[in-house]
Amino acid sequence: VRLNVDERRQQLLDLGMRAFSERSYDAVSIDEIAAEAGISRGLLFHYFRTKHDYYVAVHRVAAEELVREAFALQEGSPYERLVAGLHAYFRFVEQRAATYATLLRAGVGSDPVVNAIVESTRMEFIERIREQLDPALRDGARAHLVRAGLRGFIGTVEALALDWIEHRDLTRDELVSLAVRAMALAVPEVAGER
Amino acid sequence: VRLNVDERRQQLLDLGMRAFSERSYDAVSIDEIAAEAGISRGLLFHYFRTKHDYYVAVHRVAAEELVREAFALQEGSPYERLVAGLHAYFRFVEQRAATYATLLRAGVGSDPVVNAIVESTRMEFIERIREQLDPALRDGARAHLVRAGLRGFIGTVEALALDWIEHRDLTRDELVSLAVRAMALAVPEVAGER
Repeated sequence: VRLNVDERRQQLLDLGMRAFSERSYDAVSIDEIAAEAGISRGLLFHYFRTKHDYYVAVHRVAAEELVREAFALQEGSPYERLVAGLHAYFRFVEQRAATYATLLRAGVGSDPVVNAIVESTRMEFIERIREQLDPALRDGARAHLVRAGLRGFIGTVEALALDWIEHRDLTRDELVSLAVRAMALAVPEVAGER
Repeated sequence: VRLNVDERRQQLLDLGMRAFSERSYDAVSIDEIAAEAGISRGLLFHYFRTKHDYYVAVHRVAAEELVREAFALQEGSPYERLVAGLHAYFRFVEQRAATYATLLRAGVGSDPVVNAIVESTRMEFIERIREQLDPALRDGARAHLVRAGLRGFIGTVEALALDWIEHRDLTRDELVSLAVRAMALAVPEVAGER
């Protein structure tokens, strides 16, 4: 099958997402990925210069998709956007549990570059939520509490997601509801408490 | 100075705690630790069989101290013990910011064994809090929500601690108060909401 450059790149990222979710960095072979894609090893290295570049690109794209899906809803009240964003976030976790767990633990014991991606994704979540806030809340006397509270909120969401991946005994509505209550901690205004 | 076996071991752990907090695994040399302690390299390896064993022991002991300090108060209401535990936790973070950050990010990009210690410490926190709960709460219909909520609570506490290490603009009372509200999410009964 002939694919154009973008399609080929996407195909390789999809194959990498699956491979690196299922096995460790060392256990994934570039030859096997190239064979699955039906291309030569040389062509794969035309898209990603090294195996490590490939590994990093796969995780960067997954993190970007998570952010895009969580902020897909551009209208509605802060509360509605929060609930929609959390549903999208936990849907990503359900559908791609292995990728998510790899991403979150990713850095762990494996790779400082992937860990930097996770940390900057975390900060992007916080910044994008802050941007939506009333400036008085974002920059006023409570600014440091809002920032720390939002960081705590992200910590809760990640912990809930990892708990779900392990036990799978909460419904998505239960997860969203626990997370909304965590937001009530950080910014009551967003969680619907005024 | 002659020290007995326990004192010597403790001295080496203290030196390691400082060294590994300030520098990466590779940058710490066993020769330098032995010289600081005034003992031979051979004697150090009598206490810790390899540099990696030493590294792991240092982090295990730090994690144990954190748990011991957080659960030091054995009496009082659940709310009083929560507040005392959180004060002790954040005091540890303030006094040993580098150790804590190393411990939490430790695994990250570095060591799967240390990461396993962090993960099991996290689970120990959850288990010890659960043990103090009313059995009806611990094992009843809400058990899965309590477990997930407690995991979220730990996620919040860790995120708050790392935020404090980075920005240092919250008082300990503010940190404790945010964390108590996070507990209200998991187990309202412990946070004083009935």
